[in-house]
Amino acid sequence: MTIVITAFERSPDGGKGLARDTRVRWALEEVGRPYEVRFVSLRAMKEPAHLRLHPFGQIPTYEEGGLALFETGAIVLHLAQIHAGLLPDDADARARAIAWMFAALNTVEPPILDLAVARLAEGDRPWAGQRLPLVEDRIRQRLAQLATRLGRTEWLDGGFSAGDLMMVSVLLRLRPSGLLDEFPRLAAYVARGEARPAYLRAFAAQWAVNAVIEPQAV
Amino acid sequence: MTIVITAFERSPDGGKGLARDTRVRWALEEVGRPYEVRFVSLRAMKEPAHLRLHPFGQIPTYEEGGLALFETGAIVLHLAQIHAGLLPDDADARARAIAWMFAALNTVEPPILDLAVARLAEGDRPWAGQRLPLVEDRIRQRLAQLATRLGRTEWLDGGFSAGDLMMVSVLLRLRPSGLLDEFPRLAAYVARGEARPAYLRAFAAQWAVNAVIEPQAV
Repeated sequence: MTIVITAFERSPDGGKGLARDTRVRWALEEVGRPYEVRFVSLRAMKEPAHLRLHPFGQIPTYEEGGLALFETGAIVLHLAQIHAGLLPDDADARARAIAWMFAALNTVEPPILDLAVARLAEGDRPWAGQRLPLVEDRIRQRLAQLATRLGRTEWLDGGFSAGDLMMVSVLLRLRPSGLLDEFPRLAAYVARGEARPAYLRAFAAQWAVNAVIEPQAV
Repeated sequence: MTIVITAFERSPDGGKGLARDTRVRWALEEVGRPYEVRFVSLRAMKEPAHLRLHPFGQIPTYEEGGLALFETGAIVLHLAQIHAGLLPDDADARARAIAWMFAALNTVEPPILDLAVARLAEGDRPWAGQRLPLVEDRIRQRLAQLATRLGRTEWLDGGFSAGDLMMVSVLLRLRPSGLLDEFPRLAAYVARGEARPAYLRAFAAQWAVNAVIEPQAV
């Protein structure tokens, strides 16, 4: 059955690959599934037709036959569970790889999302300049813990998994801030993720859509 | 094999049930698995022995035989996948229930966590009073979308699932703020979750540990 995902008609990042459809494209490329993309405008994302697919009015969504999913983590996990390539075969190792997916989304990403809030949503508020260092320090705390755990290994737990896909995708959001480069092991880890052929194909596909747009600072 | 989870030796919420071990206790009760608890002090959470189990120095963790997991979402999902009671049998319905788990943790919880940051971590900053309404409005936006999707149904997608367990647990954090009561359908949804016998047992178990502690404002 044909897989259809949704993506921004015009990504706010102008093709940097930080919109969440890139994570789903990457997973689809890793498991070797072709897919189609339906582009959605910022206005259409808040209209009933899209809200039926995604109750929070975001992208990406995933449709295949009678199944409709939202939430990037759920889509990537679904693909990882029904195809080979993103989770190890051993049951315990699978559970640990999934734990890293949740860690990326629920422990590492929230302080990183707060950076976007501090810079964009609250960037013109009088406290923006004073607050930014606090937000950055909360991110540094998580990055230091992650770098310690990663140590000198290539991936978080054995071979590349959906946990690495999600963690690399979350960390990528930090590159424009310079915070990632404060942790050379993490910067190298992200670079290993970006060098994967599946990532390169996913990045190129979203770039082809968005590169004509003037990028905005993130 | 014996299941061992970790929990705060003294929960910062004094027994309100908002520490994340309650989510795991609830899942264990729903699937009918007995468990043991190892209590960890705030200091021990940051020491090497615990960091080997949880790289970010938090609770809960989960150990069963040779498997060690961290991240509440991963632990609950693991239990839901290997036992009956928390996920539907139909494959598509399972994927949708898992999507609600991710939605709870990655879309609804981040702005709620930001409220704790605004009140506790930044509560003494000069901008605290002015910033709080912005944080609350971001939460209201998510709650309104969630209330719309829930509509007049009992649970988010068919019968009670791990998605509801996680969403109710996330929304519970809001009760002290009064925000939950602005959305009567969500308040009723949370109350349905709290009325489940498995939740009541989980709450009582954490209460028995923490109720002697003087509660702090959250």
